[in-house]
This record gives sequence, C-alpha cells and structure tokens, in this order.
Amino acid sequence: MSQTELVAELVRRASAASGRLGELRTDVKDAALLRAADALEEACERILAENRKDLDAGRAKGLAAPMLERLKLDRERVSAMADGLREVAALPDPVGEITRMWNRPNGLQVGRMRIPLGVILVIYESRPNVTADVAGLCLKSGNVALLRGGSEAIHSNLALAAVLRGAFSSAGVPEDALVFVPQTDREIVDALLQRDDAIDLVIPRGGEALIRRVAEQSRIPVIKHYKGVCHVYLDEFAEPKMASDIAVNSKVQRVSVCNAAETLLVHAALAETILPDVLGALAAHGVELHGCPRTRAAFPSALAVKEDDYSTEWLAKTMSVRVVDSLDQAIDHIRRYGSNHTETIVTQDVGRAREFLRRVNSSSVFVNASTRFADGFQLGLGAEVGVSTTKMHWYGPMGLEGLTTQKFIAFGEGTILE
Amino acid sequence: MSQTELVAELVRRASAASGRLGELRTDVKDAALLRAADALEEACERILAENRKDLDAGRAKGLAAPMLERLKLDRERVSAMADGLREVAALPDPVGEITRMWNRPNGLQVGRMRIPLGVILVIYESRPNVTADVAGLCLKSGNVALLRGGSEAIHSNLALAAVLRGAFSSAGVPEDALVFVPQTDREIVDALLQRDDAIDLVIPRGGEALIRRVAEQSRIPVIKHYKGVCHVYLDEFAEPKMASDIAVNSKVQRVSVCNAAETLLVHAALAETILPDVLGALAAHGVELHGCPRTRAAFPSALAVKEDDYSTEWLAKTMSVRVVDSLDQAIDHIRRYGSNHTETIVTQDVGRAREFLRRVNSSSVFVNASTRFADGFQLGLGAEVGVSTTKMHWYGPMGLEGLTTQKFIAFGEGTILE
Repeated sequence: MSQTELVAELVRRASAASGRLGELRTDVKDAALLRAADALEEACERILAENRKDLDAGRAKGLAAPMLERLKLDRERVSAMADGLREVAALPDPVGEITRMWNRPNGLQVGRMRIPLGVILVIYESRPNVTADVAGLCLKSGNVALLRGGSEAIHSNLALAAVLRGAFSSAGVPEDALVFVPQTDREIVDALLQRDDAIDLVIPRGGEALIRRVAEQSRIPVIKHYKGVCHVYLDEFAEPKMASDIAVNSKVQRVSVCNAAETLLVHAALAETILPDVLGALAAHGVELHGCPRTRAAFPSALAVKEDDYSTEWLAKTMSVRVVDSLDQAIDHIRRYGSNHTETIVTQDVGRAREFLRRVNSSSVFVNASTRFADGFQLGLGAEVGVSTTKMHWYGPMGLEGLTTQKFIAFGEGTILE
Repeated sequence: MSQTELVAELVRRASAASGRLGELRTDVKDAALLRAADALEEACERILAENRKDLDAGRAKGLAAPMLERLKLDRERVSAMADGLREVAALPDPVGEITRMWNRPNGLQVGRMRIPLGVILVIYESRPNVTADVAGLCLKSGNVALLRGGSEAIHSNLALAAVLRGAFSSAGVPEDALVFVPQTDREIVDALLQRDDAIDLVIPRGGEALIRRVAEQSRIPVIKHYKGVCHVYLDEFAEPKMASDIAVNSKVQRVSVCNAAETLLVHAALAETILPDVLGALAAHGVELHGCPRTRAAFPSALAVKEDDYSTEWLAKTMSVRVVDSLDQAIDHIRRYGSNHTETIVTQDVGRAREFLRRVNSSSVFVNASTRFADGFQLGLGAEVGVSTTKMHWYGPMGLEGLTTQKFIAFGEGTILE
C-alpha cells in the first residue's frame, strides 16, 4: 500500500467509526474501558516481550538512559495503564451533558449540549503508556483516537493497540475507536496534518521541536504548549513558611515537568527579611540560583542572572530569581518572559491575591498553592490529554471536557420567527 | 510607510492596547459604548457624506443594486448602529466571570474564570454597520478589534472608525481598542494572517470565496462557516399545522440568510396525508420545489430534484424536498449533505425529538422551532459576531461568551504537592 493509500485508509476508518462512537451509551463505553483494562493485564507477557524488542533496538541505537527508562514497561507499569483506564471509566461521561438551559421571551427553550469533537490525532514520542491513556480518554468522550507514536516504541505500541482494539471490539465498541498509524516517518505525519476535512484536532505531545513542526505543518487546529516558564511570586505580605514551602515545592518536587517553577519573583520588602531563608532552603535542596543584583546582595552565593535566563525553561535544579518593587512589576515580568502556563502568588493580603488572579491571564493562576497543581489529575479533571497555552478552544490542562464542544439545542412549540 | 511597516505598526498598536483592554472595569467599558453610540448619532451628517463617496464610486464601478443597498447608510441605519452599541452596553460583562468552582480533597479550591482572547481580526465585505457592531462586541469582551473592511466601503468605514475611536478615547478607553486597517488589498490580509504571534482569532464575514481564502492562508485559528444547508424534517408524528408553519417560516421568512432552510425531509407516512398541503403552502409563497420521485407523486408540479441540489445553499425561493422512510434515513441525509449549521425536527413524539437532538450534531439542533432562530440575538446571546460550523473553540452562533476563553484559578492555604 502506498503512503497516500495508507493515509486515505486510516482516515476513512477513523471517520467511519466517529459517527457510531458519538452515539454509544455510557454503560457500553465504560464496560469497554474495563474490558480493555483487564485485557492489558492478561496480555502483559506479550506486551513486555514486544517492549523488549524496542529496548534492544534502543540500546543498539545508543539511546540515552533516560530515554530507555521512559520506554521501558514492566508488570507494574502495565497495571498502572490498566488502572488509568479504570479511573476513566469511573469519570462522568461528558457527552450529552446539557450545560445550561434558558428561556426566550417567545417561549423557546434554548440550551447547550456537549458533543464529541470527532477524530483526535495524537502525535507522541517514547512513552508507550500514552497509547492506553489517550485511547481511554478519547473513547470516554466519544472521539476516535488516531494515534501516531514514536519509532523507538513501535513494537510496544502495536502490541498495546492490538490488545485495546480487541477488547473494545469484544465489548461492542467499534475497534476503530483506536486507529494506530503503523508507520513512524515524518512524511505520514505531514500528510495526516493536511486532512482538516476528516481530523478535528491534533495534540502533539513531546519536545518543543516536535510541537513547533506540527504547528507549522498543520491545517488542523493544534492543542499545544511550547514550554512552561512558570513563576512563583512572593508578595510583600507573604507568610514566611508558606513562601519557602511553595517556592521549594514548585521548584524541586519534580524538576523535569512543565509545571515546575523556573523563576522566583520576590517583593523588595522581603529582600532583607525572608529572602535569604527562602533561597537558603532552595540551595539546601541543591538548587542553583541565578539572581539579579538585589538577590545577590541578599544571598551572595547566587550566580548573576542573565536576561535570557528569565525566559529559560530550566527543567533542572536551577532557578532564576528577581527582586521586584511591586505587584505591577511582577505582572509585567510574567507577561514579558512567561509562557502562559502557570503562575502563583504567595500572599496573606486579599487585595493582592484578587489583583493577581484578575490581571494575570496565564492558563493556570494560583494563590498560595504550588505551581505543581497545574495538572489535569490534580485539578480534578480526572486525567489529562494535554495542556494548552493557546487561548483557543481550551486553555490549561485538558481532560474529557476539553475533548468536547457544545451544540445549541432548542425546544419550541411550533415557534416561528415573526 | 511600506506594507510590511504598516502591518507591523497595526499589530504593535493592537498588542499594546490588548493588555489594558482586558483589565478595564465594566462601568468604564459600558460608558465608552454609550459615548460611542451618542457620537455616531452626533456625527451622522459627516458619516453620510463619506458614505455618499462610497456610493458614488460604487455606481461608477457598476456595482449591482443589492450591493449598493447593503453599502448604503442613512439616518435610520446610523441610529440602528448606535442602538446596537447601547444593547451591548446593557449585556452582562463576560470577563472575570467564574463559571464553576470546586474543591479538591486536599482543600485546594479550583475554578475557571473567563478572560478575553486578545486581538480579534475581522475581515468583512460591504456592510459598514459591521464596523460598529464588531467594535462594540470586542470592547465589551475586552478584546481589541482589528478590522479590515471591503474596498467599496472604505470611506464609510474610516469615518465610522474615527468616530468610535474618538469616543472610546474620550471615555478613558484606549483608542486602539479599534484598530482599522486603512488598506483594502489582499496582500495586507495575507500578511496579517501570518501573525499568529499577535492575533488570536480571525473571523471572516462574507461570501464562501472570501472565507475559503482566509482559511487557506491563515496561521491563526479561523471562526467560519462556509454555507448553511439547513434542514427541516417533518416526522411521522408531526402536527400538521405546525409542520406547515415551520417549513414555510424556515424557508421564506428571509431567504438570503444562512439559517434559512434549503431542504425539506418528510417521513413517508406523511406523503399522502399532509405533504401535499405543506408543499402547497410553500408554493403559495412562491417557492420552487425540487422533489424526489415520491415527492412528485404527492405533488406533481414539483420539479425533479438532482443529487447536487441536496448540497445546494439556494439562498432563494427554491427548496429541495425528499421523502425518507425513517428518522435514521433523515439523519443519514443530514450527515451526508448538511453543513453542520442548523436542523429542526417537527414532531409530537418525545422519543423522536430526543433521538434527533441526541444524534444530530449540527451546531444548532431544534425541535418544533424554525431554523431562523439560529442567530445570536434570537437565541439570547445578545448579539452575534459570527457563526462557527467548525467544532473547535465555539460551535454555532457566537456572541460575547465566544469571544472569551477560561483560565484555571486556584486558592490554596500554602498547599503543596506531596
């Protein structure tokens, strides 16, 4: 089959399944998710055998240890995938939810009802668990998952997709609820990205290079965030222990993730009071600090910050630190250097909290809480299919609700327009 | 100024105003809208003088009478624009609305708050009233309106934009809440459509050719509908008078609009009972009917329908008619030939109504109501900036709410991730 024929065939299957998927009852979808969870555990040995092929190929290609670690499956990780599907089964079904209903003066009753988007293309890299996670979220929200994983995980992904499709089918759900793209070259992605007639949304999950390439090539709307340059702002009225706890937790609880803090902004009133202690706590956790002159006056062991540092996503135990004169200056800094991901203010003053919440329009804006909560699971969405820092369709961590849109519905009684 | 410099300058002004606009208090925005309404009426003579230049140029160019009619302003139309701005001032401000708030087990209080999208580019053709309508909706929702009108209305639009900007400025709102593009060539549009770094959304308003060109060129998300092939389905259990009233109203109340019905689907059980009367009523209103063989058996004066007719947006007193055997067949027809705009079922049976509402995923789906209600004003959105038949960001008639997105907010009490 030529590549053109393959793309046409994949898209045709996805489109054909899409109509039926949007009409499935919740109990049918939930039973299929539970069946798929069991099937993953039952097929564990087979999946691990395929995963070993990927690991062997990865070692032969000289993949770095962290890449191999992301690629690796074991019994526990397969069970975690299965449990993820069980959790999605337990979430409420967004499809058909009437979010609001109101009456017009002429008696027309108008409302909005959630419906699936249709076909979701997800392009991802090494982690094979994405295959199960995304397939589950898409099925629950009535969408077809058109999945294209990375070449380094191809054996694992094909095995997982086969198990999931078989389970869906045995539970009365079209197996094409999951359509897996069996080729891993770039050309097939570029061809799929032209099919805005049949694919409703693209979610690239991976490094900034992957995301930029998808955004540039795609005619289909893209849910994306390039990076997370998240800020913690310690306001003049911050409670000292809370300031230190949130700065440390936001930075070091896990450093390699997009919602980890990269820059600490500190009100000048704190420079000679709590700032040395806060920076001491960070340093005690092994954080390398890059500070402005006032920061270094308060904490001489900090390195000198460079302008570029303020827009750097460190993803490491490194943090930029700047002393600011006011909330205004903190907000200006965030607007200039931030990435619309997540910012938090630490303050005991309700006016400052309110102003920060109102004026900072990043996708997640917190008061007295760690930036690490900017995550679908932590915010209570149940799970997360991606994070959007583009203000269209969805903004912030995106779960089942973000995989739907809303149609207008109306009930009349023979109502006509005069 | 070169075109590149002009685009850079327009975008720079829009971006600079955008931050301030999102922070304006509701009372400031409303006062500016009321000031602008008065200013339009006060400047009426000047606006009409500029409009006469456009009309003279249009006549010299040989513009068709309907085009000249759309272009023409008079005292009444200027007052209608002013009243439109007063109505927008009376609508609730969507910015800052917290749509939902919930608690997490760890005490974190999470919610979603509406914020403006940023900068909205609207590309439109001959009607100068769009200038005032869109500027009003954008200001109320905290967005900058970057407006590019058609060449045939350039004098009218420049005069309107100057009056609106002056009024905004005198009421304490940045005059760049409205940035008007003073050139009308295609190249400037193409250049603007590349600026996804600074423009958040594009809304093309005009014919299908304009919309297709914008969608193909744009790197910025586009709110669009190409056409409205809307359906009225008369179910087996339709009440006869209601069936006739809704078919007639949907078709003839105004034929040139996207929410007018283009195809009538009729359950076979009605072919020999009420169908002749319904078609007779349409014919009495001057509608030319293109029917399937069973339609023509019931109403011999109907012409024979061609396959292409089913996907035609007539925008005229013409209607395709097809007899179907079941609700399933009606839904299949709508999915195959429809345009995701608006469909309505006429039925007294609650099961059929429920099934139609649940399974038809067009952007507006009605029961026992005319398709003509698929309009922002009629549905109670207050006004409408456009209609989307793409399932992303917004689906259906789009008012103030559609011009916003939602950020996540959270209040903790020093809450950190364990």
